[in-house]
Amino acid sequence: MAAKQDPEALAAARPLLTDLYQVTMALGYWRAGRAHDPAEFELFFRQCPFGGSFALAAGLRDCVRFLRAFRLRDADVQFLASVLPPDTDPAFFQHLRALDSSGVTVRALPEGSLAFPGVPLLQVSGPLLLVQLLETPLLCLVSYASLVATNAARLRLIAGPEKRLLDLGLRRAQGPDGGLTASTYSYLGGFDGSSNVLAGQLRGVPVVGTLAHSFVTSFSGTEVPPDPMLAPAAGQGPRVDLTTCVEAWLERVCAHLGLGVQDPHPGERAAFVAYALAFPRAFQGLLDTYSVRRSGLPNFLAVALALGELGYQAVGVRLDSGDLLQQAQEIRGLFRTTAAQFQMPWLESVPIAVSNNIDEEELARLAQEGSEVNVIGIGTSMVTCPRQPSLGCVYKLVSVGGQPRMKLTEDPDKQTLPGSKAAFRLLGSDGSLLLDVLQLAEEPPPQAGQELRIWPRGARESCLVRPAQVEPLLHLWVQQGQVTTPPTP
Amino acid sequence: MAAKQDPEALAAARPLLTDLYQVTMALGYWRAGRAHDPAEFELFFRQCPFGGSFALAAGLRDCVRFLRAFRLRDADVQFLASVLPPDTDPAFFQHLRALDSSGVTVRALPEGSLAFPGVPLLQVSGPLLLVQLLETPLLCLVSYASLVATNAARLRLIAGPEKRLLDLGLRRAQGPDGGLTASTYSYLGGFDGSSNVLAGQLRGVPVVGTLAHSFVTSFSGTEVPPDPMLAPAAGQGPRVDLTTCVEAWLERVCAHLGLGVQDPHPGERAAFVAYALAFPRAFQGLLDTYSVRRSGLPNFLAVALALGELGYQAVGVRLDSGDLLQQAQEIRGLFRTTAAQFQMPWLESVPIAVSNNIDEEELARLAQEGSEVNVIGIGTSMVTCPRQPSLGCVYKLVSVGGQPRMKLTEDPDKQTLPGSKAAFRLLGSDGSLLLDVLQLAEEPPPQAGQELRIWPRGARESCLVRPAQVEPLLHLWVQQGQVTTPPTP
Repeated sequence: MAAKQDPEALAAARPLLTDLYQVTMALGYWRAGRAHDPAEFELFFRQCPFGGSFALAAGLRDCVRFLRAFRLRDADVQFLASVLPPDTDPAFFQHLRALDSSGVTVRALPEGSLAFPGVPLLQVSGPLLLVQLLETPLLCLVSYASLVATNAARLRLIAGPEKRLLDLGLRRAQGPDGGLTASTYSYLGGFDGSSNVLAGQLRGVPVVGTLAHSFVTSFSGTEVPPDPMLAPAAGQGPRVDLTTCVEAWLERVCAHLGLGVQDPHPGERAAFVAYALAFPRAFQGLLDTYSVRRSGLPNFLAVALALGELGYQAVGVRLDSGDLLQQAQEIRGLFRTTAAQFQMPWLESVPIAVSNNIDEEELARLAQEGSEVNVIGIGTSMVTCPRQPSLGCVYKLVSVGGQPRMKLTEDPDKQTLPGSKAAFRLLGSDGSLLLDVLQLAEEPPPQAGQELRIWPRGARESCLVRPAQVEPLLHLWVQQGQVTTPPTP
Repeated sequence: MAAKQDPEALAAARPLLTDLYQVTMALGYWRAGRAHDPAEFELFFRQCPFGGSFALAAGLRDCVRFLRAFRLRDADVQFLASVLPPDTDPAFFQHLRALDSSGVTVRALPEGSLAFPGVPLLQVSGPLLLVQLLETPLLCLVSYASLVATNAARLRLIAGPEKRLLDLGLRRAQGPDGGLTASTYSYLGGFDGSSNVLAGQLRGVPVVGTLAHSFVTSFSGTEVPPDPMLAPAAGQGPRVDLTTCVEAWLERVCAHLGLGVQDPHPGERAAFVAYALAFPRAFQGLLDTYSVRRSGLPNFLAVALALGELGYQAVGVRLDSGDLLQQAQEIRGLFRTTAAQFQMPWLESVPIAVSNNIDEEELARLAQEGSEVNVIGIGTSMVTCPRQPSLGCVYKLVSVGGQPRMKLTEDPDKQTLPGSKAAFRLLGSDGSLLLDVLQLAEEPPPQAGQELRIWPRGARESCLVRPAQVEPLLHLWVQQGQVTTPPTP
């Protein structure tokens, strides 16, 4: 019942969100008398995504939430009975009904940590049958979250620290929860916000949004606002008719830009006025529904200057087609001359937001020196991670009953490192990252200032390293089903 | 409350799973007195995915479920109030609280239909404010569902009708619901089943699964099953000790294959025995944990033949690494000689299942003439659709207040076709598809046997077509909020 009352639990995975072979193996373990054998699995990836050299670990909070709520309902067990052999021992289903996470211990990299191949993102130990059952949901919760966080971090590195980066990918995600996961973990990875309202409500992600082309095209210009009057920003002075005021400004703007007053589309202007009446302190114009230069820009300027007279400052414009960098330069130039012409200096620096299929290459172009773009919305490339749409995490058994376990396949890339392990990050005297060390849990930990012999992954020879600092990487989050540290964020 | 009691509703989208600009526009419409203006939007795509020439329409069922349950809760409205201007008129929030789908009408292509660019997958009409709010959830529910169904249909066309195709992509999906959507709609698109148990429980998808490498590596061979006894399949005759029986068969199998009895891994064999005890009628061996030829295959054969003596027939083997086609040929050959050697003819045709990063090219190889592969599991390539991870559906306003609306942008690809439309499929006398026609709703429908002048998309000139049959494409699913036809499947 706790799960039902927790709105966040609705967004997390359910126990049956798993591969059927986890259930058939559970029956196999149970039949072999091994359900309670103490076991440990490691969840890790084998290669950094996107051909890069790092990943961010993410999804831990969802895993902890999933574990806390883990319980098979009667309907779940009945469904499993319907897909297992009809002569399956009813005691097995009793065992399933009684399962919860009280025997499960999880060590993990903190949310948002730098992560490298082979170092466990999660170490999960507990009764063999149960921790086997957890495989698919944990992979499902960690893999994409880490992929998206890493993607966002890469995009942030390309964009530099100044640009505002916004996730607009909800409609391009793999269904509802794909979108929620993407919005949550792109924020963790360095984005400034998301268009996804649910991510704001459930995960505290800052949400952003103004208007779309449909809002603009819905107005023909013949509409009469029921109340066109707007009070000055400071609250003092008479209310003015914004529509009339905008029409007066339109003539001045068109004269300044060398356009006829008939050029700007009246429906677009009516839409901007309607939006400005609803959001006088947060007016933004979407410029490219008809023609940026001949319609969107003069209509925006007329409304922005009318608002400016009343003491309101427009908060931005958005472009969603064409050469975004070049248009931003032109628009900034026109903002400058218009600001000077009408003595509205704040107009010079109105943020220019852009969107429209922006990928890593286009982002680099938009972020180049001298770019006048301030805000960049990324949808498809953020959420689908097209360079590598899956991280490929695995969940491998490393010990049972205290004995190490290994998959010694003929495919060397798929071999696993046996035994329960500890992981440490070795840092230089300037705090820089030297490397991460994986060792057996029972070995003594590396000591700062002491020489350590290590075998780099894939190398044929060992080498020596003397770290200035040593940090343990795997923290205890859940001990025997009890949350020891609430994961942040 | 209805939504809470319907377990399926939990998996569908919630009203706040939307982009914030839908909400800011809602306020804009409301402030402009236009909340109730009758409006119509079309949801369509502009290009077939994967460079192909068709798509399948999917997700309609989720859309109808979402609409039925559409209602903003108090907590939702409170959250929206927290992100809108503090001086927003409280009457707007009253309006939001009262919203439901009772004014919404939906016409759509039936679930699983062939769909082409520009033809609406959904036509959504109703009050402007409300149908605008629906944009993002509807896109989120239709886009990926249609993409996955199309991907599955392409894979099915490549594989041909005989191979069993299984979706194994849950762990590679964009979080929990990405996986549920992928499993549901890959089945619609032509797959035979999925590993995803929740898709079985909630969507009736056939679920499949046996065992993973971790099950195999969890056994060392020293384990003693609490009950190694197995009764014959027919139920008559004494129970036998399967472990002993398997060891006896191992000697005969190794002699036949020219291997030493020490070669096959005892832990792998113990795992197979444990699995066979749990699933004597559905025994499958995963062959590549240690070595297919020296361990997995002889261990499988020893268990399968021991079961065979008791009247049980093994249901398959699975390979998850290496050259899958070549290994399948070798294994089939060894099945044949072993079946002959030990007079177990059923062994010849034990299905061979394969998995491991199978994409369209590898699938074509595995499906070639003479391939001995019977079952193909596809995970990452199924669920992530790596050739094009997003369909790019759009939702465009085509009329308000009965007046057509158009986006007449400088980017011709982004222009829209104004007006409320009807769509028809024109068929030849042999039932073959000639083309789909889009026309204004008020125009008379095309008639079978009558010549029709059409303007093919992108062409400069019109042409004439005389269809033998005409089918209306857009069916009425929801009328003024009432479901008229429950969508199938």
